[in-house]
Amino acid sequence: MVERRLPVVTLLTDFGLQDYFVAAMKGVIYNICPEACVVDITHLIPPHDVIGAAFTLGAVYHEFPRWTVHVVVVDPGVGTARRPIVVVGDQHYFVGPDNGVFSVVYEREPYIRVYHLTEEHFFRSTPSATFHGRDIFAPVAAWLARGVEPVHMGVPVEDFIRLKFPKPVPKDANVYQGIVLHVDRFGNLVTNFDAALLTSVLGEDFRRRCQVIVAQTRISGLRRTFGEVPRGEPVAYIGSAGFLEVAINQGNAAQTLKATRGTEVSIVVAPEF
Amino acid sequence: MVERRLPVVTLLTDFGLQDYFVAAMKGVIYNICPEACVVDITHLIPPHDVIGAAFTLGAVYHEFPRWTVHVVVVDPGVGTARRPIVVVGDQHYFVGPDNGVFSVVYEREPYIRVYHLTEEHFFRSTPSATFHGRDIFAPVAAWLARGVEPVHMGVPVEDFIRLKFPKPVPKDANVYQGIVLHVDRFGNLVTNFDAALLTSVLGEDFRRRCQVIVAQTRISGLRRTFGEVPRGEPVAYIGSAGFLEVAINQGNAAQTLKATRGTEVSIVVAPEF
Amino acid sequence: MVERRLPVVTLLTDFGLQDYFVAAMKGVIYNICPEACVVDITHLIPPHDVIGAAFTLGAVYHEFPRWTVHVVVVDPGVGTARRPIVVVGDQHYFVGPDNGVFSVVYEREPYIRVYHLTEEHFFRSTPSATFHGRDIFAPVAAWLARGVEPVHMGVPVEDFIRLKFPKPVPKDANVYQGIVLHVDRFGNLVTNFDAALLTSVLGEDFRRRCQVIVAQTRISGLRRTFGEVPRGEPVAYIGSAGFLEVAINQGNAAQTLKATRGTEVSIVVAPEF
Repeated sequence: MVERRLPVVTLLTDFGLQDYFVAAMKGVIYNICPEACVVDITHLIPPHDVIGAAFTLGAVYHEFPRWTVHVVVVDPGVGTARRPIVVVGDQHYFVGPDNGVFSVVYEREPYIRVYHLTEEHFFRSTPSATFHGRDIFAPVAAWLARGVEPVHMGVPVEDFIRLKFPKPVPKDANVYQGIVLHVDRFGNLVTNFDAALLTSVLGEDFRRRCQVIVAQTRISGLRRTFGEVPRGEPVAYIGSAGFLEVAINQGNAAQTLKATRGTEVSIVVAPEF
Repeated sequence: MVERRLPVVTLLTDFGLQDYFVAAMKGVIYNICPEACVVDITHLIPPHDVIGAAFTLGAVYHEFPRWTVHVVVVDPGVGTARRPIVVVGDQHYFVGPDNGVFSVVYEREPYIRVYHLTEEHFFRSTPSATFHGRDIFAPVAAWLARGVEPVHMGVPVEDFIRLKFPKPVPKDANVYQGIVLHVDRFGNLVTNFDAALLTSVLGEDFRRRCQVIVAQTRISGLRRTFGEVPRGEPVAYIGSAGFLEVAINQGNAAQTLKATRGTEVSIVVAPEF
Repeated sequence: MVERRLPVVTLLTDFGLQDYFVAAMKGVIYNICPEACVVDITHLIPPHDVIGAAFTLGAVYHEFPRWTVHVVVVDPGVGTARRPIVVVGDQHYFVGPDNGVFSVVYEREPYIRVYHLTEEHFFRSTPSATFHGRDIFAPVAAWLARGVEPVHMGVPVEDFIRLKFPKPVPKDANVYQGIVLHVDRFGNLVTNFDAALLTSVLGEDFRRRCQVIVAQTRISGLRRTFGEVPRGEPVAYIGSAGFLEVAINQGNAAQTLKATRGTEVSIVVAPEF
């Protein structure tokens, strides 16, 4: 088998799956770069949820091959003064609106450059004012996939928008307060406590030493996986995105615990057990 | 990078996403044409909604590379006397049932030929009577993608089915009456007024001269994009498919205005503002 | 056109479409095997529904090219003692947890070998305990797609888990009792009576000789397709997966007949009509 690098382009939007929007972007990409391998991340970001898109992108972009082009279109300000940008990270490209949707990328990447996309010959001719996904971001992504350098596409900017993600805060000597960042398909609650933070606060044996409190339910200690507690029981663990999660083994924690994005989550340091 | 034309095959169905139906079509296609690049347009057309499929196809097929094969399977009459057809447009192929699902293609393409698919050696062996998507349309699409000419697949027909899309009608000297054609994922209302019609009726400055009335809400003038009105306000504009649309900036017009497909939309000519 | 075999990898999960889970698997696969053609079967298996995944896989895997790698991740026991396995069938590979999800494959394939995946250098480094789809099954699938032989990935096992699917049973000389196995997107009821069984019980003219009773509705005889009865009428036929199905022509049988998975279905032998 010949190993040939197909350029990968990922798409992450709030466009849903019932309309022609996603397919229009793919048509544009294949027209410019027939070699592209276009992969959907998701199109079910809730409409206009920039924070949700930033979280989802941050959880997955690093799994893709070097110089994958990640297109993110959650863009309530489409057609207004907000700028279309390309972000060059250490090994990945990102294309989308300058509305904070790349905030997690800015946190994670060791080195970034951001360009305001101004060279309109890389856009679709006569772009619409309401569908920059098709008319600006898809064609730019396809030209990146073909090897055009971002420096030829626009001008460097420094004042791009970074959204602040809420971080857990200490409440008293023994309690840290965080929130649910994301509820996944299974109803698992992804919190904003990451493993590094837990280690720094609780030490290397944080799994044994912490209690998690969410919606009046207290969970003692962290497990490795759901199946280490009986079916129907709550369980806390470090999830696959690197954050503390709360689940119900083979159940739905969001429904059972009546928790949702933004619900408070406390960590209690419990040296005695 | 070598630029090699991979043959693109698009799929547009009412099959949904929870069953094996779409994957069965893809398996058949990759078996016959391993080089194919199969792209989903959508599989969430409401069951049996031939008009909805025709609209969606019309909004997107022209974005794809030349000689893309577009397979459309919304087919309540599967297995009955309705004919399987291939339509050859100016630069695209279309494969599906002869039930009007290609009506927008017939309007748009400068030149078409239609063949009744009769050559059964291009079908799956022993086709079922209930799944022509897998057994007839997918294999025919794959053979087209491999370069077989449609003329070898069937016989030309002229009496193919064209559905009439409702066009706006004048009500009096100053009022035109149309309808909502489609409600998209964001609740935006796509009407059957297209930009060419508005220009012919209202003149080149139609954006300034028209009032849009839908569900007792009156919107003065057209904007370029949502963000030109305050958040939560209704806005009219020419959408990315070329039709007049009504939205609520960062809201859901269908829910707020209680409008749906078929809801009446009026354009009032307003020379004074 | 050069016919080059791209290795096909299919994905069948209960991960849903709103999270990063499916995309993470694809990123891992493209990193290891850039040539792969990754195809979604479905990701909307109800959470933890191993039986539903087994049914869906059984209905479609044989449509794919020889040596397609089918990855199935419906895995309530992820991270516990349940084994990750690869199944080698006559012409297909299957990768997933040893929890019975391949039971239909075991029934259908003339010859199988099953390996417990133990060679961790084919896994993602430091696999998580909660996302073996990304960390074990996706990389193993990609290495299979690149041509690594399963024998190098683990040790043969014989005691893999086979789930029993309920078979129809005779109730008296003239009545057989089965159930609804699956309700599809259209509300069609797929039963566990297959065509071979009907032939053996009722003879070659079973279409004419059987009455189907489901939820107090009696349907006389089998048709070829929906459209052979008037719109809104119930109809029984052999569906595209080879099982007896009950539908309402252009309607939704599950809603109208108030039937769901597990609902009883009877076949009455009716020699007189």
